Amino acid sequence: MSSENGSAEETAMRTALAAAEEVVGTTSPNPPVGCVVLDAGGAVVGTGATQPPGGPHAEVVALCAAGERAAGGTAVVTLEPCGHTGRTPPCSDALRAAGIARVVYAVSDRNPAAAGGARQLSDAGVQVRGGVLADEVAAGPLRSWLHAARTGRPHVTWKYAASLDGRSAAEDGTSRWISSAESRAEVHRVRARADAVVAGTGTVLADDPRLTARTPDGGLAAHQPLRVVVGDRAVPSGAQVFDDAAPTVRIPGHDPAAVLAELAERGVVEVLLEGGPTLAGAFAAAGCIDRVLAYVAPVLLGSGTAALGYAGVGSISQAWRLHVEETTMCGPDVRISAVPVPRS
Amino acid sequence: MSSENGSAEETAMRTALAAAEEVVGTTSPNPPVGCVVLDAGGAVVGTGATQPPGGPHAEVVALCAAGERAAGGTAVVTLEPCGHTGRTPPCSDALRAAGIARVVYAVSDRNPAAAGGARQLSDAGVQVRGGVLADEVAAGPLRSWLHAARTGRPHVTWKYAASLDGRSAAEDGTSRWISSAESRAEVHRVRARADAVVAGTGTVLADDPRLTARTPDGGLAAHQPLRVVVGDRAVPSGAQVFDDAAPTVRIPGHDPAAVLAELAERGVVEVLLEGGPTLAGAFAAAGCIDRVLAYVAPVLLGSGTAALGYAGVGSISQAWRLHVEETTMCGPDVRISAVPVPRS
Repeated sequence: MSSENGSAEETAMRTALAAAEEVVGTTSPNPPVGCVVLDAGGAVVGTGATQPPGGPHAEVVALCAAGERAAGGTAVVTLEPCGHTGRTPPCSDALRAAGIARVVYAVSDRNPAAAGGARQLSDAGVQVRGGVLADEVAAGPLRSWLHAARTGRPHVTWKYAASLDGRSAAEDGTSRWISSAESRAEVHRVRARADAVVAGTGTVLADDPRLTARTPDGGLAAHQPLRVVVGDRAVPSGAQVFDDAAPTVRIPGHDPAAVLAELAERGVVEVLLEGGPTLAGAFAAAGCIDRVLAYVAPVLLGSGTAALGYAGVGSISQAWRLHVEETTMCGPDVRISAVPVPRS
Repeated sequence: MSSENGSAEETAMRTALAAAEEVVGTTSPNPPVGCVVLDAGGAVVGTGATQPPGGPHAEVVALCAAGERAAGGTAVVTLEPCGHTGRTPPCSDALRAAGIARVVYAVSDRNPAAAGGARQLSDAGVQVRGGVLADEVAAGPLRSWLHAARTGRPHVTWKYAASLDGRSAAEDGTSRWISSAESRAEVHRVRARADAVVAGTGTVLADDPRLTARTPDGGLAAHQPLRVVVGDRAVPSGAQVFDDAAPTVRIPGHDPAAVLAELAERGVVEVLLEGGPTLAGAFAAAGCIDRVLAYVAPVLLGSGTAALGYAGVGSISQAWRLHVEETTMCGPDVRISAVPVPRS
C-alpha cells in the first residue's frame, strides 16, 4: 500500500466516523457504523451509516449510493463488516457482490456471532486492512456498543449538573436553574444520543421532569430515548414523564444490576443516568457507572441536596477514582467528562 | 511615538510584569512592582522589582542596575511611579535624578497618598505614557493590592480541594489525599505568594495542618505567610500550626469582617482562606470571597464533609454566582479559578 493510499483511506475513515456519529442513539442494539466507498481511482462515490434496526447496515447504504462505481473500489468502514445473517444479510456478501476489491476497517468485531467478516472477505480474494483510526472510533461512536458487547450490560453515563460545591439543589429544594442554558441545551443533545434515560422516583416526584430530548425551540428531537423510572415510590399518573412524547417504563427496586439487565433485554446499549443522588449513589456503589458527565456551574450554595448520595465509600481509600478525559466550557459552566480508574 | 518604540516598550513591560510576578507575596503592604530601564537607544540596561518593606522600590533597583546608562533613557514600570515619601523617597525624584527622559507605566496609582507621580514627572518635562498592558498587570501581580487599595480590606482567595461531588473528606473524616501530589505542590506555591493563610479551629483540630509553604523536598519556602487560626475552640499548644516555622496569630470569633480588619492592620494584602467548610461558608455569606481556587479531584465520595458549609443561601435565587476565569489541569485534577459576579 502506498502512503498516498493510506492517507486517502484515513481521510475516508474520518468521513465514515462522522457519518457514524450522526446516527449514534438510533441504531441500538446494532452498532452505529459509518462507511465510505471509494472507486478504483480513489474518489468518494458513496457514504452511508447504519439505519435503525431492521434497516440496512452502513456498508449497504454506501454501496447503494455508489452503484456500479463501487466495482474494483475500496470500502472504508468503522467496524469490521459482519459475516453473518441477522435481520439483514451479511455485509461481507454485499461487498463482494458489488465487486469491492479492498476493505479498510477501524475496529474488529469481537462479537462471535458477527465476527469473521474480514476473514471471509480475505478468503474470497478481497484485500483487507484493519485498525485504521481504531482508537478514535472505539472511543467515539462505537464506545457504548463495544462496552455492551464486552460486558453484556449497557454502558452507563451518569450525567449531573451541580454547583461548584457539589450541590444539585438549594436548601429549599429549588434547582432551576443551577446550570446554564447552554448546558441544558447540550443535555438534550446528549439525551437524543442515548437509548434510555434513567431517573429515580425521588427525582420524578421532586422535579416532575419530562426526560425527553428537546430542541432549542422546545420541540421534540427526532429520536427520543426510552424513559425509565426506577424505584418503589408511587408516582402520580399525571407526571410529565408519563406523557405521550416517548415510551416510559417503570422498574421497581434500586438494584443497578437488575435495572441494567432489564434494559439490556430491551436492546438498550447506552443509558443516561440522570439522578437523583440516591440512585446515582447506588449505581456508583455497584461499580455501574462507566462515565461521569458533570456540568459544574460556577455557583456556590453551601447547603441543599448533594449531587451524589451514599456510594459505599466509608474512607478515603475506598473512594471511586476517575480519570478526566476532557474538560471544556459549556457556556459559563465547566463540563467534565471522566471515566473510572479500574480498582486493583 | 513610533510603533517601533511602542512594541519595544510592550516587550519591556512584559519583562517588568514577569519581574513583578517574582516578588508577589514579599512586598506587602507595598505593591509588587516591576521596572525595566531602557537606554537612549532602546536597549535594556536594568531590571528591578519591589524589595521587602523598607527596601527600595522597583524603579530604584532598576536604576541602580542601569547606572549612568539610564540618562536619556526610558523607565517601563508596572505601576505609576509614586510621588510621595513613605519609608523610601519618591520614585519620581529618583527617575528625574537619573536623567530618565520617558516613563511608561501600566496601571495608575489611585492611592491618594502616592498618586500624582505621573503628573510630577510630566510637569518636570519627562514624557509620560500610561495604560500599557494595564489589564494584564491589574489582573496579574497587582490584583490583590489594587483590591485592597480600592476596598480597604485584603483580597481573599478561598482555596479548597474536593472530590468531583464536592466533598473534602470521606465519611470517617479521612482526607489524605483527595487531590493529587501536583495540586498539593501548587498549593504550597500559592501559599508562598500570600501574606496570610487562614484556617478555622475546626480544621486545625481535625487535620493538624502546618499551613506553611513548603518546597517539593519538604523544606520551607523562602517566604512564609502569616498563619491565622480563626475561632473560639481551644487548640493544643502542641499543634503544628504553632511550630517555629512561621508566625501564627489567633483571632477569636467567626466574623469575616473582623478577621479582615485585623489582618489589614497587620499589612496583609492577600489572604489565602483554606477552610474548613464552616469558616468558608461564613466568608461566602459575608460576601468576603474575592476569588475561588478549586482543586477538583476526579474522585467520587458520595458521603463525608461538604467542602462548603452554610453560606446564607436558602433558595436558588440567592446562590452566589461566579465567573470562571480559567480552567486548567493540575496533574489529574481540574483547577478552576472563579471570581464573584457582583450581585445586582
